[in-house]
Amino acid sequence: MKFKRTERIGAIVKILSDNPNKIYTLSYFTNRFNAAKSTISEDLLVVKSVFEKLHLGKVITISGAAGGVKYIPKTSKQENAEFLMELCNRIKDEGRILSGGFLYLIDLIYDPGTVSKIGKIFASNIDYTDADYVVTMETKGIPMALMTANAMNLPLVIIRKDIKVSEGPTLSMTYVSGNSGKLESMSLPRKALKPDSKVIIIDDFMRGGGTIKGMIDLMKEFSAEVIGIGVFISTMKPEEKMVEDYISLIQLDVQGNEIIVEPNRDILADTEPEEDTEDMYI
Amino acid sequence: MKFKRTERIGAIVKILSDNPNKIYTLSYFTNRFNAAKSTISEDLLVVKSVFEKLHLGKVITISGAAGGVKYIPKTSKQENAEFLMELCNRIKDEGRILSGGFLYLIDLIYDPGTVSKIGKIFASNIDYTDADYVVTMETKGIPMALMTANAMNLPLVIIRKDIKVSEGPTLSMTYVSGNSGKLESMSLPRKALKPDSKVIIIDDFMRGGGTIKGMIDLMKEFSAEVIGIGVFISTMKPEEKMVEDYISLIQLDVQGNEIIVEPNRDILADTEPEEDTEDMYI
Repeated sequence: MKFKRTERIGAIVKILSDNPNKIYTLSYFTNRFNAAKSTISEDLLVVKSVFEKLHLGKVITISGAAGGVKYIPKTSKQENAEFLMELCNRIKDEGRILSGGFLYLIDLIYDPGTVSKIGKIFASNIDYTDADYVVTMETKGIPMALMTANAMNLPLVIIRKDIKVSEGPTLSMTYVSGNSGKLESMSLPRKALKPDSKVIIIDDFMRGGGTIKGMIDLMKEFSAEVIGIGVFISTMKPEEKMVEDYISLIQLDVQGNEIIVEPNRDILADTEPEEDTEDMYI
Repeated sequence: MKFKRTERIGAIVKILSDNPNKIYTLSYFTNRFNAAKSTISEDLLVVKSVFEKLHLGKVITISGAAGGVKYIPKTSKQENAEFLMELCNRIKDEGRILSGGFLYLIDLIYDPGTVSKIGKIFASNIDYTDADYVVTMETKGIPMALMTANAMNLPLVIIRKDIKVSEGPTLSMTYVSGNSGKLESMSLPRKALKPDSKVIIIDDFMRGGGTIKGMIDLMKEFSAEVIGIGVFISTMKPEEKMVEDYISLIQLDVQGNEIIVEPNRDILADTEPEEDTEDMYI
């Protein structure tokens, strides 16, 4: 089948966009579109400019034998600001307050469009160059962790609370929930992580940080290193958390009927993440 | 900012592809790209042909006041066949057999790329025209249910096993697991579904069908109607399930050390789903 130039460009955008962080060789495109290398190289220049002009991320070229092009999703400062401000406004609704100062948020954190954007923001603000997995704990963090894993092109690992899970030999651990002070349990099948892995932890909510601290401890039992932590909402109190070096997108405080909620200003800063490859044209 | 024709086309592909089943007006594109209506209409013809030539789904035009264009993801017969055959080959590995005849599958069903394709196959084979939600039960079905919800542009609802969940007034129910014959519980916050909703149920695994039957019963308590059921893997035995009218992508039987696994032939048939709108150009 023959493709016109405009069709090839549309198709390359679609393929790269659907498969973030996956390397495609020039030959893949020359075969798929029955076109010369020089033609595809020109197409890729246009594709690159589409992503940059729309602030949708970068298409970069990796040289060498295993080289090719890949799409790195990246959100812009302005897009982050608009999206997080809109989310904050939706969270502010008094009708969301549940007894115990909790907030009803599952309409937001289970919404595919919302978690897809959250995943891209995490991928834009956490360095996952060396990461092997995205790790989360069931249940409410799973949708945003999956979308983060998708943007980072990493497998997702879900820690279970249930210790009766039948997934072969399983490592279980107890931890103290920073919130309730209660003893809780978490478990993960032995097979879930390769030894000496590097992982990114993603979760929906952090109050004291006890759960994330527990996840870090569990990772040690798997000889895995936590190289990045992202939480969607962190509470302003307690100020002192049980973990350091995390990023949170939104900060929250609930005082009676008043909900104080604001985006994390660091996330709105337009920082360029480090890149492991040269940003050059083919 | 001015865009070249090739850039506009790449950009439109990206926007539609990232937001399946969301309607974009012609004005949205004329404003975003600072271009005339006639120009955008021509671009959309090319975009339409990109999706069709690559068998990635359809871009259709909805006429009327609330009209515009939207992208409907649809997988092709050939793509389904290749993907499901490859999955079957990976599932066949004897090393996956756990005690009790269970299979270790979480490396597959937590993989973003895999569940993204599964979601598109469900969206291609279940009629969700009138659906309001995708519903699943924690935990292992969540990733594929989220990606199905994403492809269908519907919110996701997650039924919890834990009855202590603090999400406001919650409806809890017991059901008999078809597999173990044990009494299990499921619960869902009152707020999770609007009254008189229509829902699609997605789950990862079905043996007897007791869990899905329980979900259908829970939906009745919310005055919701189940209009479609998709399961990733169903077992060949028992042949008689507690639910009817479901589609499963893969059929499985484990006999000692032998894993019999095959794709569902119905899914590989190239059926055209019904459309609620005319398939015409702008």
